[in-house]
Amino acid sequence: MIILTLNCGSSSAKYQVYDWNEKAVLAVGVVERIGLEYSIIEHKKTTNGKYTEKVQCPTHKEAIELIIKMLLDSEHGVISDMSEIGAVGHRVLHGGELFKQSALITKEVIEQIKAFIPLGPLHMPANIMGIEAALSVMPDIPHAIIMDTAWHQTMPPESYMYAVPYEWYKDHNVRRYGFHGTSYLYTAKRASVLLGKDPKDTNLIICHIGNGSSICAVKNGVCVDTSMGLTPLEGLVMGTRSGDLDPAILPYICNNTGMNVNDMDTSLNKKSGLMGICGMSDRRDVRSAAAEGNEKAQLAIDMETHRIKKYIGAYAAELGRVDAVVFTAGVGEMAPHIRLGSLKDLEILGIHLDEQKNAIAQCRNGELDISVDGSPVRIYIIPTDEELVMTEDAYALMQGTYDVHMNFTYSFQHKDYVNKARAAALKEDLAKKPELEKVLVYPR
Amino acid sequence: MIILTLNCGSSSAKYQVYDWNEKAVLAVGVVERIGLEYSIIEHKKTTNGKYTEKVQCPTHKEAIELIIKMLLDSEHGVISDMSEIGAVGHRVLHGGELFKQSALITKEVIEQIKAFIPLGPLHMPANIMGIEAALSVMPDIPHAIIMDTAWHQTMPPESYMYAVPYEWYKDHNVRRYGFHGTSYLYTAKRASVLLGKDPKDTNLIICHIGNGSSICAVKNGVCVDTSMGLTPLEGLVMGTRSGDLDPAILPYICNNTGMNVNDMDTSLNKKSGLMGICGMSDRRDVRSAAAEGNEKAQLAIDMETHRIKKYIGAYAAELGRVDAVVFTAGVGEMAPHIRLGSLKDLEILGIHLDEQKNAIAQCRNGELDISVDGSPVRIYIIPTDEELVMTEDAYALMQGTYDVHMNFTYSFQHKDYVNKARAAALKEDLAKKPELEKVLVYPR
Repeated sequence: MIILTLNCGSSSAKYQVYDWNEKAVLAVGVVERIGLEYSIIEHKKTTNGKYTEKVQCPTHKEAIELIIKMLLDSEHGVISDMSEIGAVGHRVLHGGELFKQSALITKEVIEQIKAFIPLGPLHMPANIMGIEAALSVMPDIPHAIIMDTAWHQTMPPESYMYAVPYEWYKDHNVRRYGFHGTSYLYTAKRASVLLGKDPKDTNLIICHIGNGSSICAVKNGVCVDTSMGLTPLEGLVMGTRSGDLDPAILPYICNNTGMNVNDMDTSLNKKSGLMGICGMSDRRDVRSAAAEGNEKAQLAIDMETHRIKKYIGAYAAELGRVDAVVFTAGVGEMAPHIRLGSLKDLEILGIHLDEQKNAIAQCRNGELDISVDGSPVRIYIIPTDEELVMTEDAYALMQGTYDVHMNFTYSFQHKDYVNKARAAALKEDLAKKPELEKVLVYPR
Repeated sequence: MIILTLNCGSSSAKYQVYDWNEKAVLAVGVVERIGLEYSIIEHKKTTNGKYTEKVQCPTHKEAIELIIKMLLDSEHGVISDMSEIGAVGHRVLHGGELFKQSALITKEVIEQIKAFIPLGPLHMPANIMGIEAALSVMPDIPHAIIMDTAWHQTMPPESYMYAVPYEWYKDHNVRRYGFHGTSYLYTAKRASVLLGKDPKDTNLIICHIGNGSSICAVKNGVCVDTSMGLTPLEGLVMGTRSGDLDPAILPYICNNTGMNVNDMDTSLNKKSGLMGICGMSDRRDVRSAAAEGNEKAQLAIDMETHRIKKYIGAYAAELGRVDAVVFTAGVGEMAPHIRLGSLKDLEILGIHLDEQKNAIAQCRNGELDISVDGSPVRIYIIPTDEELVMTEDAYALMQGTYDVHMNFTYSFQHKDYVNKARAAALKEDLAKKPELEKVLVYPR
């Protein structure tokens, strides 16, 4: 049984093929530049090297046809017949307040998610285009939607409501939704495993730090607060997004410069964050520049970590007890200096970082613990796996065994769960860098 | 030696007359409705009852002339000759990055603060009008400015910079300034006295909760962060102001409703906060409504206290060690339910609220401690006294003894300091409510 997962952006379609019986990824890839004069597919069969080809994909439909063709290809393919695909899982940005969990796609569901286009004008049309294209190419198998917002639907009103005119909520759906939900679901469940606790007894602060970043407070296994809001602009200092600021800056700058409110939206999403401060958004570039004495780059690092630290404090106060702080996603997994700035001098919260362990911890194939032995709060690095959540949700929905996450046990919650590809890569990591043993907690 | 303090709003002029030798307030008052078809002066000589009169004040100049006339009045007055006034202290909203402390007014200073009008378009023109009017009425004595922002100028860049295009800071002065600084200065110094610590060894989280609210992190006696930003809109949920929100809500609502960005500014400043959620902004009304089952009023309370709690956690993380949490201003001093919601279940931060003491603590004339005996972090209620700071700054500037607050010792930092008027009122409070003895720490 093969599960295909799809993640369609405005000009791209990412995919993963998972063999459910073998619990193994067979292939991953992406079609980029959809709708432009030419497109490019990058395809990697697990047992082969990477394959790249220039192609023509005027719409997402051609891209998805191309993906299917690649999966059936005699050299690069991983299936011999379309009938091997049992279900497709589609990543969807926004489920509004309606979707509190993943769902099978029906005509009604498509109409329902179309109503959320205004809440995600950049992502939702592409998400929906991808679904409709996949349905037309694979009409006879179950398709499921897995939403970035669903995980966050357990937030209480004092977390999700803004102190704005109430009709903005009632008439225009203005509230905190939160994003990166699939990543939080995966890392929260894994953290419970590492802690040896039932999710319903686990309190966590999870920092998903990538180019886009957010942070999530998990109480008794469910989300109670998160930093992204109506849109993914709010919260942390990100690669190119401002995160939190005085809302009065928008009218102030509009009135001072003649920019309009949509120019501001673009500036705050594309030209702000680290990019706004120091002209770079890749954390490696920022770090190198700071090391060479670039003061704005150092300021950008200080601002990013200062903001993360403030959220950790805020969420510790909300939770009352924290079992672990978790870092995930590209920067969270690979940038010790960001973790150091965010976590140092937090003993007041019971968070004791081992700076030496933190410096060692650069590895995306194992789960690491960088806290001091005996720290009341553990500090974990857990490489996220959103595709696996999508795969399992799609499979369970197809089988009729699916339920909302607190009533459902994922494969990766089992003690003996191992991601085979990562376990293999980890062996290589350990061969190159044996001191990783000092921080590795899973798999061992 | 008499010190007059003035606080001019767009249509009002508040004043206080202080006898420096006696360390006593002689009179307080306010002229309201300046510039309207008629104005009203409310004047209270400390030894008399309140006096109210309808008057004509087309501009602040007439208002200040009227105040002087009232001070000289045979029945309501407190001085016999203008020469008794030794100095005037003027409250000014914004000192930009230039004024890190109070200053004597010169022609140059007036030009300098005029440059900050764009940063405070509602307050600054009135502040300046008041200064110019007072100078023309009292040209021969020293005038001083005391700014709401000066206290906050010790913030490090990672606290005061926004992650927006850098040129917004360079060309348009976009940064966090913070407000309520004079109140923070007073309450921080008083908290050090109560703790028996030198200010330079004192870490505090001060919650100034009134109709407008903000919160301040004090490390080693100086401000390191605060919740208000470029303007007083950012941060906590206030009476009619939203505080923090996803900045993308502005373009979203503009695009959905046809409002422009200045309409949004008005909505977020005047129609949001508690008012936006439940249609009321006075905390007493909100509390009564919630007690009667009004769910939106309860939500408004939950949102306000949730936000305060998050900031307390964030600032505890920034400070690393907290000696005391301080509540001040109308709501902070008089609303136990707001303090309870903000402080309960914060033992993780060493903050142990005594709920019974908290319930008793409604008194604006003494300094109270509502923490559990042995709480690592004290919880104080300290009635603020911004006028006294203004008075002392004006006096010291006139005398040439003034310096920035860390190099200056205010009268109220002395162990034997007592506010006479409050001490007298406190006796009456204690007679009516003897259980206040359980929470009173100063004066005793």
